[in-house]
Amino acid sequence: MSRTDFTRYLPILDWGRRYDRTALTGDLIAAVIVTIMLIPQSLAYALLAGLPPEAGLYASIAPILLYAVFGTSRALAVGPVAVVSLMTAAAVGQVAEQGTAGYAVAALTLAVLSGGILLLLGVLRMGFIANFLSHPVISGFITASGILIAISQVKHILGVEASGHTLVEIGTSLLAGLPQTDMTTLAIGVAATGFLFWVRKGMKPALIRLGLGARPADIATKAGPVLAVIVTTLLVWGLDLSEQGVAIVGAVPQSLPPLTMPAFSPDLVSALLVPALLISVIGFVESISVAQTLAAKKRQRIDPNQELIGLGAANIGAGFTGGYPVTGGFARSVVNFDAGAETPAAGAFTALGLAIAALALTPLIFFLPKATLAATIIVAVLSLVDFGVLKRAWGYSKADFGAVAATIVLTLGFGVEIGVSAGVILSVLLHLWKTSRPHVAEVGLVPGTQHFRNILRHRVETDPAVLTIRIDESLYFANARFLEDYILNRVAEDRALRHVVLMCSAVNAIDLSALESLEALNERLGDLDIRLHLSEVKGPVTDRLTRTHFLDALTGEVFLSQYDAWASLTGGSQGPGPVPVAGR
Amino acid sequence: MSRTDFTRYLPILDWGRRYDRTALTGDLIAAVIVTIMLIPQSLAYALLAGLPPEAGLYASIAPILLYAVFGTSRALAVGPVAVVSLMTAAAVGQVAEQGTAGYAVAALTLAVLSGGILLLLGVLRMGFIANFLSHPVISGFITASGILIAISQVKHILGVEASGHTLVEIGTSLLAGLPQTDMTTLAIGVAATGFLFWVRKGMKPALIRLGLGARPADIATKAGPVLAVIVTTLLVWGLDLSEQGVAIVGAVPQSLPPLTMPAFSPDLVSALLVPALLISVIGFVESISVAQTLAAKKRQRIDPNQELIGLGAANIGAGFTGGYPVTGGFARSVVNFDAGAETPAAGAFTALGLAIAALALTPLIFFLPKATLAATIIVAVLSLVDFGVLKRAWGYSKADFGAVAATIVLTLGFGVEIGVSAGVILSVLLHLWKTSRPHVAEVGLVPGTQHFRNILRHRVETDPAVLTIRIDESLYFANARFLEDYILNRVAEDRALRHVVLMCSAVNAIDLSALESLEALNERLGDLDIRLHLSEVKGPVTDRLTRTHFLDALTGEVFLSQYDAWASLTGGSQGPGPVPVAGR
Repeated sequence: MSRTDFTRYLPILDWGRRYDRTALTGDLIAAVIVTIMLIPQSLAYALLAGLPPEAGLYASIAPILLYAVFGTSRALAVGPVAVVSLMTAAAVGQVAEQGTAGYAVAALTLAVLSGGILLLLGVLRMGFIANFLSHPVISGFITASGILIAISQVKHILGVEASGHTLVEIGTSLLAGLPQTDMTTLAIGVAATGFLFWVRKGMKPALIRLGLGARPADIATKAGPVLAVIVTTLLVWGLDLSEQGVAIVGAVPQSLPPLTMPAFSPDLVSALLVPALLISVIGFVESISVAQTLAAKKRQRIDPNQELIGLGAANIGAGFTGGYPVTGGFARSVVNFDAGAETPAAGAFTALGLAIAALALTPLIFFLPKATLAATIIVAVLSLVDFGVLKRAWGYSKADFGAVAATIVLTLGFGVEIGVSAGVILSVLLHLWKTSRPHVAEVGLVPGTQHFRNILRHRVETDPAVLTIRIDESLYFANARFLEDYILNRVAEDRALRHVVLMCSAVNAIDLSALESLEALNERLGDLDIRLHLSEVKGPVTDRLTRTHFLDALTGEVFLSQYDAWASLTGGSQGPGPVPVAGR
Repeated sequence: MSRTDFTRYLPILDWGRRYDRTALTGDLIAAVIVTIMLIPQSLAYALLAGLPPEAGLYASIAPILLYAVFGTSRALAVGPVAVVSLMTAAAVGQVAEQGTAGYAVAALTLAVLSGGILLLLGVLRMGFIANFLSHPVISGFITASGILIAISQVKHILGVEASGHTLVEIGTSLLAGLPQTDMTTLAIGVAATGFLFWVRKGMKPALIRLGLGARPADIATKAGPVLAVIVTTLLVWGLDLSEQGVAIVGAVPQSLPPLTMPAFSPDLVSALLVPALLISVIGFVESISVAQTLAAKKRQRIDPNQELIGLGAANIGAGFTGGYPVTGGFARSVVNFDAGAETPAAGAFTALGLAIAALALTPLIFFLPKATLAATIIVAVLSLVDFGVLKRAWGYSKADFGAVAATIVLTLGFGVEIGVSAGVILSVLLHLWKTSRPHVAEVGLVPGTQHFRNILRHRVETDPAVLTIRIDESLYFANARFLEDYILNRVAEDRALRHVVLMCSAVNAIDLSALESLEALNERLGDLDIRLHLSEVKGPVTDRLTRTHFLDALTGEVFLSQYDAWASLTGGSQGPGPVPVAGR
């Protein structure tokens, strides 16, 4: 393996050699800010995933380090994120009961499977599969997930039991639990939620009005959730509220991330494989978007396939160190970037900070109410909910609107896995459907020019013996028959026709199905004594066609330009004669 | 409902009013020839489907009549065909044991389900779904099915028991049975197969050499299988071979098609729904190809959606009259057409002929050896096997080759349902993959002209401050990110750049995902102080873009032609200035 190969697969060799004091300062400051932000967030997302709070801390340590070694983004912060935590809860909930040892082990397995899939896709350089998730599907999925996440946390605010993976399941479960609402918990939850909303919207302007600089005000805002954690923990401890029914985090082991062993029984693996695939792809899409946005600001490059390897390593790391599936998070990465992170070393320092927290600070969160963590989640995810995309899609294209609406409805109604799968399938089908009925125009000569335009929209010259069809789409299996049917129906009742010209200026490719359709068309038109011609065929398409017998069998000719075709077939001009492609 | 609507849904009202003596003569002659050909074929295909022989006759009677009323093809002959019979055996074999009453009932249910699906697709005007079966997938599937069918019939030639739905299953089952081979059966089977191959290849020239005219020789050739049936039946009867172990057809009820009632238990329906869908689509594709080919020769029109209704009615009819799934067959339709069928009435007369056969002739086939029927099938299906498509696809496109090869291998290895489903999914994925990495060229001005060409292939003028990219594909979700990545990577290390122009002459559509990618690109390039421009945007694409805020946010301009863009951005010409699209 050459030096370049090493650098490609281990980007750390590239930036590591050039590491200096300026970079160190930037990285250290960023790490402190991100660590403070991540402590409550990691605990909260673990809760959302149905795991003990320490799993969230553990999932932030090894994965950050591994991503720092293998990833290409300078600022991406890897760890538990809301949507992946929800998907983890949905997937693991199908194979084990929440709170059991089997549940935690299944989460480890899920992380390793996701990591394996990401790694495999990266090594096979198959980053393009993320493209199959269209933006409408992603937007719809994120919005619906945000709603599901928020509503799933309401139980902690109310202090009741509830479960489920769809809007109806969670809703009915919450309604059933409503009479058992714990008023003290509710008070803490509502107060924390209200405070955190204020932190997000009103705190920074308020601090600035109080004379604080913009940057310290910004950092204080990031620390808002930590403040909520400290105040409510002290409150529960001081007033002994846990004795009165307020659910608390309780004992969290003081430990570095443990070495853990996922289970790989065939039953478990086969049950988790599809969820792992969905988590990998969704996580990758979320991560690469963030990485690309941040990299572009500094003219840095992101290699999608190397990103797959970085995220794969991070997830495998999570699976062997007590974590669960992770990915690059939007909020934390932006904070990391804005705080001045220069290299992935910032991530390593963050990991160090979180390790210290896991080792030393966990006794301090014994009395932390779960309602506070739920409030953190609710406030974070509601910013993901954006119904504006529905209006936007409606205005732009009904097909895109259909994809968004279906993804939202199906995710809310049937859960994350069915929602996102159906969204992907639907957007592929809609695309095939749209291109299976391409725009086809009958064109004629604009008098006095060499341009050809749609006969329905312009006053153009035509010839009863010559039919010219412009196809505004590549020809492939989904529309091959359409063209065949269209032309055969068009010629069926037109006995004056002697020539059909296909104007191929917008045909970027012709696949084998379309080629066979053209051959059939050529033959059938030949039976009717009509010659088939092509014009304005693109270079790559011509290259491919010349490798077949189609051009030999073609009853007509291949014209360089539509005007050549018109001039030759109608005799209406003294332009250059036909140039059969075989002669070029 | 108006008169025209009636005619659309009941094509019989159209041709029925104009029926005359000439048409009657043509139809009658065709019916006699097709009836003679269909008797052995119907019995044989029933055997292939795992049903009693009379089911093949019944499946040819009501369906032909119903298609004559609802179908649009003048020459299509509907009934049992090889591939659909094989698919029926595979589907019904999963829910019932061959030879039981449950098996026959499940076949009826399958026919009604297929019919219902076809009818629904027709009423919803969704004929386009047949387009999702690419030609390579169809070719591969037909070839592999032909092999599976032929090998599944070898047991009748050997006179042994064997079963299975994949190459390996049938093969091992046959090998296990080999020691029990019945030599008399083998002799009959081999002789019949050899004779039928000779009928297909050598009989017509031989008869012509003997002084027979071409047309009588042709008809005699069609009657070849009947001759094999008569000779082997007489042989078995005369020599009492059934006593010596030669398997015979045995007692077949003398009856018109019975009224039968399919079962619709939820379990059965849900088990058969996917197979029914596959059978519908495969059957429809086979049928519409034949219908279209024959119609084109006489400048007649085929309405694909009305064809769905015709085939739907035929299948529902088959389900209530003791048959099983049917479709328009290639061989019989061509014979019908060549024999001079003028209208669907030819089909009605054929149905009459077969009804007479079912009522009167069944005792005559008591001693007909199953080996003869197997020989009929083997000879018929081996003509479907065409490995040439592999070579052809390889030469044209590796993606198409992949689709053919995978379909063949998966059909042989895992059976018809997995084979065709995987083929469809694979060809869709390959299409998405191909269009997800569109051809993108950096272009420059050909000196002395207004043409722009690929800088890698031509000597062209460029400007270090202006990058012009031509995209040879519509922009949609599968390639939106590709373009974004491509351009951001391209500009990452080029600090002289001030303008990026996207030349959109080959962009037939831009979906919402691609629009959002363009917006992100515009913003990110803006951060780098680079303006984004578009040129040669097509009318329909412009229409859509003007409904959004994209053109307002665009840092650059929209130029009518690439030359306008060049002239304006480089100041290299006195051409017409930029024309922002908003001003049009």
